Amino acid sequence: MSSQNKLIFLPLGGAGEIGMNMYLYGYGPEGKERFILVDLGVTFPTMDTTPGVDLIMADPAYIEARADRLDAIFITHAHEDHIGALGMLYPKLAAPVYARPFTAAVARAKMEERGQDPWVVQVVDSYPEQIEAGPFTVSYLPLAHSIPEAAGLIIDTPAGRIVHTGDFKLDLEPIVGEPYDPALFAEIAQGGIKALVCDSTNVFSPHRGKSESTLNANITELIANASGMMVATTFASNVARLKTLAQAGVDAGRSVCVLGRSMQRMLGYAHSTGVLEDFPPTIELEDVADVPRENLMLIVTGSQGEGRAASAQLARGKYLGITMRENDTFLFSSKTIPGNEVSVGRIINSLSAMGVTVIDDSAGKYHVSGHANRPDLEEIHDILNPQMLIPMHGEYRHLKEHKELGESKGIAGIIAPNGAMIDLTGETPEVLDHIETSRLYMDGTRLIGAFDGVVLQRIRMATRGAVAMSIIIEDNDVIGVWAEAMGLPDTIGSGPSLNEAIEVTVEQELMSAKKNLIKSDDEVERLVSRIVNRVCKDEVGKKPVSQIMINRLVED
Amino acid sequence: MSSQNKLIFLPLGGAGEIGMNMYLYGYGPEGKERFILVDLGVTFPTMDTTPGVDLIMADPAYIEARADRLDAIFITHAHEDHIGALGMLYPKLAAPVYARPFTAAVARAKMEERGQDPWVVQVVDSYPEQIEAGPFTVSYLPLAHSIPEAAGLIIDTPAGRIVHTGDFKLDLEPIVGEPYDPALFAEIAQGGIKALVCDSTNVFSPHRGKSESTLNANITELIANASGMMVATTFASNVARLKTLAQAGVDAGRSVCVLGRSMQRMLGYAHSTGVLEDFPPTIELEDVADVPRENLMLIVTGSQGEGRAASAQLARGKYLGITMRENDTFLFSSKTIPGNEVSVGRIINSLSAMGVTVIDDSAGKYHVSGHANRPDLEEIHDILNPQMLIPMHGEYRHLKEHKELGESKGIAGIIAPNGAMIDLTGETPEVLDHIETSRLYMDGTRLIGAFDGVVLQRIRMATRGAVAMSIIIEDNDVIGVWAEAMGLPDTIGSGPSLNEAIEVTVEQELMSAKKNLIKSDDEVERLVSRIVNRVCKDEVGKKPVSQIMINRLVED
Repeated sequence: MSSQNKLIFLPLGGAGEIGMNMYLYGYGPEGKERFILVDLGVTFPTMDTTPGVDLIMADPAYIEARADRLDAIFITHAHEDHIGALGMLYPKLAAPVYARPFTAAVARAKMEERGQDPWVVQVVDSYPEQIEAGPFTVSYLPLAHSIPEAAGLIIDTPAGRIVHTGDFKLDLEPIVGEPYDPALFAEIAQGGIKALVCDSTNVFSPHRGKSESTLNANITELIANASGMMVATTFASNVARLKTLAQAGVDAGRSVCVLGRSMQRMLGYAHSTGVLEDFPPTIELEDVADVPRENLMLIVTGSQGEGRAASAQLARGKYLGITMRENDTFLFSSKTIPGNEVSVGRIINSLSAMGVTVIDDSAGKYHVSGHANRPDLEEIHDILNPQMLIPMHGEYRHLKEHKELGESKGIAGIIAPNGAMIDLTGETPEVLDHIETSRLYMDGTRLIGAFDGVVLQRIRMATRGAVAMSIIIEDNDVIGVWAEAMGLPDTIGSGPSLNEAIEVTVEQELMSAKKNLIKSDDEVERLVSRIVNRVCKDEVGKKPVSQIMINRLVED
Repeated sequence: MSSQNKLIFLPLGGAGEIGMNMYLYGYGPEGKERFILVDLGVTFPTMDTTPGVDLIMADPAYIEARADRLDAIFITHAHEDHIGALGMLYPKLAAPVYARPFTAAVARAKMEERGQDPWVVQVVDSYPEQIEAGPFTVSYLPLAHSIPEAAGLIIDTPAGRIVHTGDFKLDLEPIVGEPYDPALFAEIAQGGIKALVCDSTNVFSPHRGKSESTLNANITELIANASGMMVATTFASNVARLKTLAQAGVDAGRSVCVLGRSMQRMLGYAHSTGVLEDFPPTIELEDVADVPRENLMLIVTGSQGEGRAASAQLARGKYLGITMRENDTFLFSSKTIPGNEVSVGRIINSLSAMGVTVIDDSAGKYHVSGHANRPDLEEIHDILNPQMLIPMHGEYRHLKEHKELGESKGIAGIIAPNGAMIDLTGETPEVLDHIETSRLYMDGTRLIGAFDGVVLQRIRMATRGAVAMSIIIEDNDVIGVWAEAMGLPDTIGSGPSLNEAIEVTVEQELMSAKKNLIKSDDEVERLVSRIVNRVCKDEVGKKPVSQIMINRLVED
């Protein structure tokens, strides 16, 4: 082991993928480093790969094993992919948690939800306030994003200053929160930046990003020209957008009602922490019925087509007693995240079938991204002029493109996907080690490992069906055979049911099997499994998951 | 019942959705109509809604019950969503099948695959050749699309002429097959068109569609400038594209190998039926190893990210011994069908991580659509000048937009989603009836109904897990309890396994249950199901599917 102090960066989640961010920084001699962790996010399950799972997060095993050397957890902002795992993983880590006020309000709720003490989350002011955490000194750098109070981190270490951007965009008029301040960036870069660890999401977007404030005129015009009821959806945490939508509604002479608990919760945090001012007056749900529909505007959840959210329920017919009709307008003030196209499309179709005019962002008029585009990234590279660039928050191709963008200006870069331990100590970033990384699933009330086989068995049952069998053996005689197929067609043509076909074949073959075979549970199980596979393959064309229960009756 | 002759149109699949096309035309007095069926397509399953299902098709129940009055089945072209269900549904319908030569070759293979007689498929020439089918006289109208020999149908009836477009585009240089011929359209419109039943897929695309021939220069330039190995993927049935890709490869001095059985099969049909001429020379797989990679081009399957296709296998590391490397180029000469974004994205990322340059169609240079865009649709409306327009092949919003486009020119229109029986006899189309429509699933080797509950149970097992229980009762005493959880975490903290926890609780509660309850299988099952739910909810937070097997031992 080297006794030399090293500054290391190790992404445990969110690098080489979009979602479940978790980044570790370490400083010290090998085996004795002190650590800080940035963000504890989740990603969302799909039926394809994670049916039945509630939430997915990076497995913090590496830092869990070294939790005694973890000095702090910093949350950059309150999006689920940065904060969603806090309450679930905190027990494994148990270090002080820091966040700015709005983020801290969300973080405390996440802790409470999972039975953790919300007061371990400490509220911090932004730069120049500093938090000391072992060898690290950390400041929050305000940055615009699609949620209030997003922030980068200025991480000072004995080996130099790191800027970890978190998610950000350059927005001179973000509606809510601090505008982009190039002078502040120049100030923090004065002593030199060792490494810029930087959002890569929009590196393929060639034009300057648009300000949140550019939407106001388009949305106002759209709502002013709408005839029936107006309904708009966006991401619940995009408080600035909620304000723009509500203001446009009020300006068009409509009564505005914000529906959906997650939106109301976010607005509540924004009000109570003072990040939101001048939100236009809104009405309560119980007053909606009194407003003529042409004077009404609803702001609802479900921009991604989530089955239980207001948008999907309206598309299915009714939400909280409200129905949409011919000549109403529905606005998606949002982009569709890849993977959600089908569920969003389903809502558009259903609403269209009701005669509702559905407006989405295909014309680029009603939504702006929360991430810095390519020229914006270049501006930050130029102002900060870091010694090295570590692209983060992106799939592999984003990281690669971002690295090449930096290299084109002479900034040393490296692609650090999850598990790549990067040494930032020297002149250029070097891969020091590869750590095995994995995922944890919140499944019902239990955290399970991605490789535990539980979800794999569920996928198998979903694609192949299952057969449960009970075999009763007394004195090495088979006296009972029972089969129950699940998720398989249960009649075979006009003949006997599939269950009967399995039972008859198993009985026959066990009757004619050797006594020695019947004595062994393992051999009976193997034989019966094979028979189940064969009968099901013959009869319905599938080899199901089988579960054989062998009950041996013992004389008292 | 009315004894008046009526001309009816009834979509059984493909209207209000994209996929599994199946359209019925009828003529005659109510209850005595004679029918023809157009297309028998499939759509593809998803883990979300149809896990384990192989193929989905419209349920032909309505026409199956009237199969004695079905005079013919016409297949417009050989895409799966128009022909894929032929072999599976033919036994329910058993009418003569007609198709043009290339389509017939595919149709015969579909019949053979499912054990049906391929020779019921009759090859027909295109217009002016006519097929008599009851009161209908039908001609095939050649149209360009993204597969050879696509065709519309000219359907003459005693009530007037219908043009059923099938899928089409207006292409003056389609590379393979007949170019668009406005004069031919004008000719068939001379006697007046009663109804135009028309493709709506691209009604939202505002500009003229591009010809297949416009790709040649772009693809040639791309391949000429590629340095390492070149790999391109597209839809296997897009024979014109295969030709363009192969020609560009040969022009760039590369040896071209077409991999993937489905592509080779399609090329085989195209050769043997004479629709494809001058396909450039290609090499066999066994010769690939002898060609330096900078002189090699592979054309592979899997443009939609299909897990078993060549593209996905190359992305995972190796396909037929071939690996991709730094500086190779991979071209998606295809669009990503909604729902496939995630699997295509996975391939792009994996190939990028290998250093491969991945080119997709985001710049609109390497793929053209096979469907008519809005101005193209207008051109057809104008030339044919039909009395009425029935939009088909689209989701509801496409149908609606297309209807409104027609109405803006004074053409009477109607939205006819699946099950809407439309009366075309009069001046304007009228809804005559609504027929219950459904879907059939090919599941392993069995056709099952969408509402049979089989797939629903599989989805439940996938999201909740399952518990199988065997309860042995002798003389109304419970003498054995066995639980096997499937797809559930099987240890509870550091305590007993979930199976043990269920068994102990069930045993205790059955022991203390009243004798009368134990006598009833139904009551035991209800009680045990409740216990399983409660224990699982307490221990792992899920209520699984449970399957309780009660074995009562009887004295001999």
